[in-house]
Amino acid sequence: MLMSGADYRESLRRFAPRVYLNGAAVDAVADEPLLAPGVNAVALTYDYALREDLAPLMRVGDVNRMLAVPRSNDDLLNKLEAVRLVCQQTGCAQRYLVGDAFSAIASATHDMEGDYHERFKNYLKQVHDEDLAVGIAMTDGKGDRSLRPHAQANRDAYVRIAERRKDGIVLRGAKAIITGAPYMHHLLIMPCRNMIEADRDYAVCCAVPIDAQGLTLVTRPAGRPGEAAAKFSGRYGQSTAVAILEDVFVPWERVFLAGEWQHCAAITYTYATHHRHTCIAARAGFGDLLIGAGALMTEANGIEVDEAPNLREAMIDLIKIVEGFYACGVAASVYGSRDAAGVVVPDTVFANIGKLLLATQIYDLHRLAHHVSGGLVVALPGPGEDHNPATAGRLSDLLAARSDIPYEKRIAVARLVEDLTASSQGGWYSVISLHGGGSPEAMKMEIWRNYPVGSKVDLVERLLERGVLADEVRKITKNRQPGRCCVQGCMVPLPDPKVIALQKKKA
Amino acid sequence: MLMSGADYRESLRRFAPRVYLNGAAVDAVADEPLLAPGVNAVALTYDYALREDLAPLMRVGDVNRMLAVPRSNDDLLNKLEAVRLVCQQTGCAQRYLVGDAFSAIASATHDMEGDYHERFKNYLKQVHDEDLAVGIAMTDGKGDRSLRPHAQANRDAYVRIAERRKDGIVLRGAKAIITGAPYMHHLLIMPCRNMIEADRDYAVCCAVPIDAQGLTLVTRPAGRPGEAAAKFSGRYGQSTAVAILEDVFVPWERVFLAGEWQHCAAITYTYATHHRHTCIAARAGFGDLLIGAGALMTEANGIEVDEAPNLREAMIDLIKIVEGFYACGVAASVYGSRDAAGVVVPDTVFANIGKLLLATQIYDLHRLAHHVSGGLVVALPGPGEDHNPATAGRLSDLLAARSDIPYEKRIAVARLVEDLTASSQGGWYSVISLHGGGSPEAMKMEIWRNYPVGSKVDLVERLLERGVLADEVRKITKNRQPGRCCVQGCMVPLPDPKVIALQKKKA
Amino acid sequence: MLMSGADYRESLRRFAPRVYLNGAAVDAVADEPLLAPGVNAVALTYDYALREDLAPLMRVGDVNRMLAVPRSNDDLLNKLEAVRLVCQQTGCAQRYLVGDAFSAIASATHDMEGDYHERFKNYLKQVHDEDLAVGIAMTDGKGDRSLRPHAQANRDAYVRIAERRKDGIVLRGAKAIITGAPYMHHLLIMPCRNMIEADRDYAVCCAVPIDAQGLTLVTRPAGRPGEAAAKFSGRYGQSTAVAILEDVFVPWERVFLAGEWQHCAAITYTYATHHRHTCIAARAGFGDLLIGAGALMTEANGIEVDEAPNLREAMIDLIKIVEGFYACGVAASVYGSRDAAGVVVPDTVFANIGKLLLATQIYDLHRLAHHVSGGLVVALPGPGEDHNPATAGRLSDLLAARSDIPYEKRIAVARLVEDLTASSQGGWYSVISLHGGGSPEAMKMEIWRNYPVGSKVDLVERLLERGVLADEVRKITKNRQPGRCCVQGCMVPLPDPKVIALQKKKA
Amino acid sequence: MLMSGADYRESLRRFAPRVYLNGAAVDAVADEPLLAPGVNAVALTYDYALREDLAPLMRVGDVNRMLAVPRSNDDLLNKLEAVRLVCQQTGCAQRYLVGDAFSAIASATHDMEGDYHERFKNYLKQVHDEDLAVGIAMTDGKGDRSLRPHAQANRDAYVRIAERRKDGIVLRGAKAIITGAPYMHHLLIMPCRNMIEADRDYAVCCAVPIDAQGLTLVTRPAGRPGEAAAKFSGRYGQSTAVAILEDVFVPWERVFLAGEWQHCAAITYTYATHHRHTCIAARAGFGDLLIGAGALMTEANGIEVDEAPNLREAMIDLIKIVEGFYACGVAASVYGSRDAAGVVVPDTVFANIGKLLLATQIYDLHRLAHHVSGGLVVALPGPGEDHNPATAGRLSDLLAARSDIPYEKRIAVARLVEDLTASSQGGWYSVISLHGGGSPEAMKMEIWRNYPVGSKVDLVERLLERGVLADEVRKITKNRQPGRCCVQGCMVPLPDPKVIALQKKKA
Repeated sequence: MLMSGADYRESLRRFAPRVYLNGAAVDAVADEPLLAPGVNAVALTYDYALREDLAPLMRVGDVNRMLAVPRSNDDLLNKLEAVRLVCQQTGCAQRYLVGDAFSAIASATHDMEGDYHERFKNYLKQVHDEDLAVGIAMTDGKGDRSLRPHAQANRDAYVRIAERRKDGIVLRGAKAIITGAPYMHHLLIMPCRNMIEADRDYAVCCAVPIDAQGLTLVTRPAGRPGEAAAKFSGRYGQSTAVAILEDVFVPWERVFLAGEWQHCAAITYTYATHHRHTCIAARAGFGDLLIGAGALMTEANGIEVDEAPNLREAMIDLIKIVEGFYACGVAASVYGSRDAAGVVVPDTVFANIGKLLLATQIYDLHRLAHHVSGGLVVALPGPGEDHNPATAGRLSDLLAARSDIPYEKRIAVARLVEDLTASSQGGWYSVISLHGGGSPEAMKMEIWRNYPVGSKVDLVERLLERGVLADEVRKITKNRQPGRCCVQGCMVPLPDPKVIALQKKKA
Repeated sequence: MLMSGADYRESLRRFAPRVYLNGAAVDAVADEPLLAPGVNAVALTYDYALREDLAPLMRVGDVNRMLAVPRSNDDLLNKLEAVRLVCQQTGCAQRYLVGDAFSAIASATHDMEGDYHERFKNYLKQVHDEDLAVGIAMTDGKGDRSLRPHAQANRDAYVRIAERRKDGIVLRGAKAIITGAPYMHHLLIMPCRNMIEADRDYAVCCAVPIDAQGLTLVTRPAGRPGEAAAKFSGRYGQSTAVAILEDVFVPWERVFLAGEWQHCAAITYTYATHHRHTCIAARAGFGDLLIGAGALMTEANGIEVDEAPNLREAMIDLIKIVEGFYACGVAASVYGSRDAAGVVVPDTVFANIGKLLLATQIYDLHRLAHHVSGGLVVALPGPGEDHNPATAGRLSDLLAARSDIPYEKRIAVARLVEDLTASSQGGWYSVISLHGGGSPEAMKMEIWRNYPVGSKVDLVERLLERGVLADEVRKITKNRQPGRCCVQGCMVPLPDPKVIALQKKKA
Repeated sequence: MLMSGADYRESLRRFAPRVYLNGAAVDAVADEPLLAPGVNAVALTYDYALREDLAPLMRVGDVNRMLAVPRSNDDLLNKLEAVRLVCQQTGCAQRYLVGDAFSAIASATHDMEGDYHERFKNYLKQVHDEDLAVGIAMTDGKGDRSLRPHAQANRDAYVRIAERRKDGIVLRGAKAIITGAPYMHHLLIMPCRNMIEADRDYAVCCAVPIDAQGLTLVTRPAGRPGEAAAKFSGRYGQSTAVAILEDVFVPWERVFLAGEWQHCAAITYTYATHHRHTCIAARAGFGDLLIGAGALMTEANGIEVDEAPNLREAMIDLIKIVEGFYACGVAASVYGSRDAAGVVVPDTVFANIGKLLLATQIYDLHRLAHHVSGGLVVALPGPGEDHNPATAGRLSDLLAARSDIPYEKRIAVARLVEDLTASSQGGWYSVISLHGGGSPEAMKMEIWRNYPVGSKVDLVERLLERGVLADEVRKITKNRQPGRCCVQGCMVPLPDPKVIALQKKKA
Repeated sequence: MLMSGADYRESLRRFAPRVYLNGAAVDAVADEPLLAPGVNAVALTYDYALREDLAPLMRVGDVNRMLAVPRSNDDLLNKLEAVRLVCQQTGCAQRYLVGDAFSAIASATHDMEGDYHERFKNYLKQVHDEDLAVGIAMTDGKGDRSLRPHAQANRDAYVRIAERRKDGIVLRGAKAIITGAPYMHHLLIMPCRNMIEADRDYAVCCAVPIDAQGLTLVTRPAGRPGEAAAKFSGRYGQSTAVAILEDVFVPWERVFLAGEWQHCAAITYTYATHHRHTCIAARAGFGDLLIGAGALMTEANGIEVDEAPNLREAMIDLIKIVEGFYACGVAASVYGSRDAAGVVVPDTVFANIGKLLLATQIYDLHRLAHHVSGGLVVALPGPGEDHNPATAGRLSDLLAARSDIPYEKRIAVARLVEDLTASSQGGWYSVISLHGGGSPEAMKMEIWRNYPVGSKVDLVERLLERGVLADEVRKITKNRQPGRCCVQGCMVPLPDPKVIALQKKKA
């Protein structure tokens, strides 16, 4: 049953998580002003799903799109659109991460022995039925980066199964950078890397309620609540938290992996692929805000973009970057493929290229937004001055740009640009775009690992052979990956994908 | 009826075009060695269409995909795949341009009065039935760039209707940069810009056989025929020609525009959109060759890519660029929309972004291919040395990189890389990628003209209003384009969202 | 007489400026916590000039380098080094701007009739003798960007001479983005653009004490004073202010331009050249902080840079960018030329290229600093948590990276990186780097205006003539600028090559 | 005694090298048309040194600047100017490489035991006295890249001392990519990497006459001799050769290293630093040609650059890139330091950054040159058509752009742009810019190895300590390089700051 935003706020009161913020305990998450922008952002995902006009995007049957596991290429495309839509409104809607995680767990448990897959399906049904918000707890403390989990001096550097009991498991350790943790209903504990047998106590995936015994969250404010100049992030923002687990008990019915170290890589990488796909949409929504704000700022500065070629060029560059990486998300949707569990997984190469492009180009977006906005965005008087009788009138008079655009409007837009790109919020977005969902190097490795270089080498070798070279060049490359069916590959209805066909033909 | 490559070669003999190449007249195009690489490339589009395994890509019913007008989003996607496939083999298959032109003329004539549309459909049927190769003659001489066609000192600077006769029209002028002209069956004369009423004699679109009376082609060799080091472009290449029209008569049944200056912009821009979409695929095919050749070269140099992080990085960058702009082609296909004539037109913004990316990044592709290949690609002895008894043995001995890869293989791949990226052929590809289908500035203007900036400004204004600002900011932007329904920021109300339509259609 | 930092603080008490900050009046600038980081930064320029070990860099005779007019190419080079040195310590030392302005005014007044030059020399002597800090008030309110000063609806949109009296002039209007205004002793009012005769009331340059009657400053905090996480900008920062001038009287002896509109362009452009040269040094100093902080962060994360090629690559890129634009400052110093007033002006082309590079690449510096630092820099618990007994111990335990580097160190460096690049301070630095000293477009125009394109065209024409072409190509370009004597392509005859001159001077 | 270009040509006849070109033996290098562009380019360095107006640049006393060892920072700066000057005329003057090698050998032999240094000084005197052209034979065959010289299966994969005799040594092996080899008087054999003791037979540096017994050169044509469209490279070009050494005897007086493997690294790296410094100048000269040709082409196309903002932007970018990397050469000159042998070595960091920038940005230069030139540069009829009576007149009529610029001029400039950037010559320049003097990775390693990262870390640590952190952070980095005295962050104590020293020296 779908909740409204108001229902969601109310539902938070039914949990009593142990949350510290700026060193002090939070009494009630739903009432905490420093978390309000985060709660607002999540609430919007509830309200939008209730809107009939948005239903095709925001719902899959009775389920909120944010929670759904994609079962078709259209699902992937609509998920992309839905996430862009909500992030246009709130910067980052946070709640979609769990959909990515569910997809990965659905696929991984399908391949595992035992009743993990059944348990997971039951849990998924519960989340769907209760329309929960679930946070993803993935990044471990990690300790010494050169050592594997089991080899760390501090045994709790990675979250581990400290005890296996008849009725469940007991966890210890810490997870960091958990998006939106305090105002979630549950946390999903997931492994953050591949493991070996010695790491088996660290191979764990399960769900815990946010107020589980032994769970402590240390968080930071969501956005810039209470700051008068925070035009956007005073209203919408994102909190991240560190979760400390001190003997947290999890009953078996919510455990989806407990020791099967061989499956950690699959969960981690599959989650990464899904998540990078949605990240693309999220940041495209943020890019939409920059495009709109940039255009509005030039107007407020009294400049016709078409008469200032360098500003028009910058606006076009903004668009080129945002739609350029979004296109990778679209292509990843179109070329996504269905796995054994019936989950349609975005094409890994396109998804990683899109995320890689946004990760590095977010800085260019900031540059371009600043370019079109002019230097005043960081130099105009602050909101404290707005009602100072000694200065307000004169400032309004002297700093207006065009007679038909009041100074108040100009300064409002300037503060918005500053908020989005030159404040702590802007800095946060840049770092989280760069490193969220894995660092650029991780994407590069995934692209390399998944790209059918071998088929391209074959192509060139055949050309050389067929052409002038005859027998000079033949099969000199080794270790080539078999050609993937994908990338350059074939649309509906191609019952028999091209590259594979080609490959077979030779065999 | 589909021809084979051999049929196509034979069919060329039925035409007797007036062609000059390097200052001398060409006797028979089909036998001219300097044009052979171009003929080879076109021939492949015929042979591939006959292959059953490639039928889903290469045919639309009984028609070669290169000649087909897209009627669905899947058609656009399959066209993209098909063009990439043939260009992977030949660098540039040349024959697909006419499909782009047909789409534009189908749309434009549909909106015109008179029987232009009927005439065009008849002509299209003929081309399909006879499986012709048709070249696009678009770029005029242009003369003084600051003057319109009718205002030029030289009346023939743009191709014009010199005489209107009862049975047809008579043309004078010149067209430049005609891809593959000598080995086409027909040329399609098209306007290359928007026009005003005074330009009406220059508003002309029609088809002429390649050996029409009064038509002279001045061309250059296709690729690098006959050069021993030309591993690729000795076999496949592209010829461009200037066409001089001196009183060329065209009967009315092959005239699709004659004076209706208002429709020139539509033909020009619509063709540009279709063509930029296919350019993306063409250059992705070329990129596949670079990826394969680069990987092969590192191998021939005796280097494991995974042990040389800087080379792996360069390989990944190659992939990122090629698949990054290809993704824009995919997105343009998915978000393409059907017009009144039933033609599905690629999304203009995505198509132009993709073409813009490839236009500027082709230089990066060269850089990266050189990076992974090493400096020897331009410094190894030439083919003249291969059989010099005084040096060949010793060179083969001293310049081998690894014992299991003979020097002959290494030098073969090195020459291929040189051919593709550091020869006149490589230079040609870079310039034609940059300027073909319009220069970067043209793409930027199209992006700007078509992007729904207004809807993004609305988005931001609503945020400011709803948020802190209340009535401070309201509707200060003017001249906003109505929000496009689709992807980018489709705001409520969603009149008929394409994505959803897509979904329904399939359901 | 050189003051110490302590002297400078004390000297501020001798002025009583009217300053508003966050809407409230500031009682005593020297005691205002929100301005303290700015005062600290300026104070350091005083203390450093007193250090004997730094004397060759920080002093020119008895004068602080920040205030000196360069008289030799070595002066330019040492100024560059000195500014980099102080900005390494404080981010931006602010006080050097006036040296740039003095150079411009020295040159401009030298060419003017009347006793302006004498007055200026007297004023310069006073500033040197009293070792003052002087702020630059240049950017006007500007009003409608499409209109000249005299044509604005609001007569005060640009600062103007409202009245000419026997003993001086009376000013009205506003200046924005005045660096460090509240804690300066004087402000130097300067024109910000070229003017025409009708603008003559707006052509004004003069000095006013910071507490002049009728002068009001509206300012923002310097840096992030009082924020516990502000590792750097809690100590050093920069305040900018808007100055409102309401009938400010300036006696003639401090007026250096009053109506001579023809000289506005010279003052503006010459100031820009000097200032862009010093900006290069300032931002190189900031870059040094990023390089150091980035290296420290990788270490604190427990990573050996040499074992992580992608991090090493990013570190090298950081260095490449910082030293790359710094090199342009060095070249501008070496190729600077002495003008009629004896001022040595940096080479315009190199100075503008350097500033242009830093303006756009500051965003890359942020990206690279984030790349090497990892995502935790924005996700670690805030300083409020440091002493929370409920969490501090456990966090310190779980989030330490390497046993020999305490968590406290790691978090300290992370907060420094966040402060420098992902906080409001980081945002401020990016915008001010992009737009300070003129926007990128302004630099591009200066490069274009000053580059000897004509001499390069001559070079190519001579090659074509001498070579194969004989008389085909001859003198087809017009409006060519005369070849600059110096570096770039100075062809024979070399009238007075600078390099050679340099050589002779030393011989 | 300085020779003229004519003297140099004549002098080549006194040598009888064994040269193969395109598989055939070359009778007389001085008369070989396929080598003429190379000979022309070297000849110009002789003629220019005789011009009195260029003497300050082109001569050091009685010695051609190309052959001189820099003894002051001014020498470095003038060398930079001189190399740029000659490369502006000829693309690449080739003869300056030996000056770079002499500097490295002068420094290395100074540190070696025995009479190597004396021998070298004698040899240097001979080269100066006879004004020779000397080629650099450095790049070995290399064989398996993963093995050291002594471990190769093929013992001759690196040039080695096959025999030590009383009167000299005997060499075997091959050297590749030798610039200008056939038309040099001598070759200088140099090691191309660091070595270990087991490699001592491969540690060899010596000079051999070009017609030494046992020496065979396999070369390629210089430029594009004899091609009518080769506006530039038909006249000036560069040949590279592979040298095969089969028992070449070298008398002791011309041996400068024979087994002292410890010194190989010094020779290799020092040569690299000098050579990268001069490469910067060489490519800046090439850049000047592109700037001039680009401006000329826009003019020939009938376009006013100032009315086409996108072309002006591209022209400015061309300038920005060329002068941007040139500035690094200037800075490397200014911050160069004198070593024990009295040689002034360019600053390694700046020299490597400059070379790295040009290596990767040469591709951007091509892109920009194509951008301003338009697509016709590769599509205009070839020179064969110029005198075809059937087409020439009509083409000239129809393809002229502006009435005052004949078609012949337009096409001449178009062919020049094609020659410089889109022909085999253009490709050659791009690859050789990327890999010549070491690949980008080599430069990056040198930057990293030489940059005083440690001093930047110190800077940041002191800030943290002095500021808020007190004793939290202290000396956590290890392996830090001692701070370089100079530019980058010279911190107190300044032991002997170079800049200041410079200043004092002059005072």
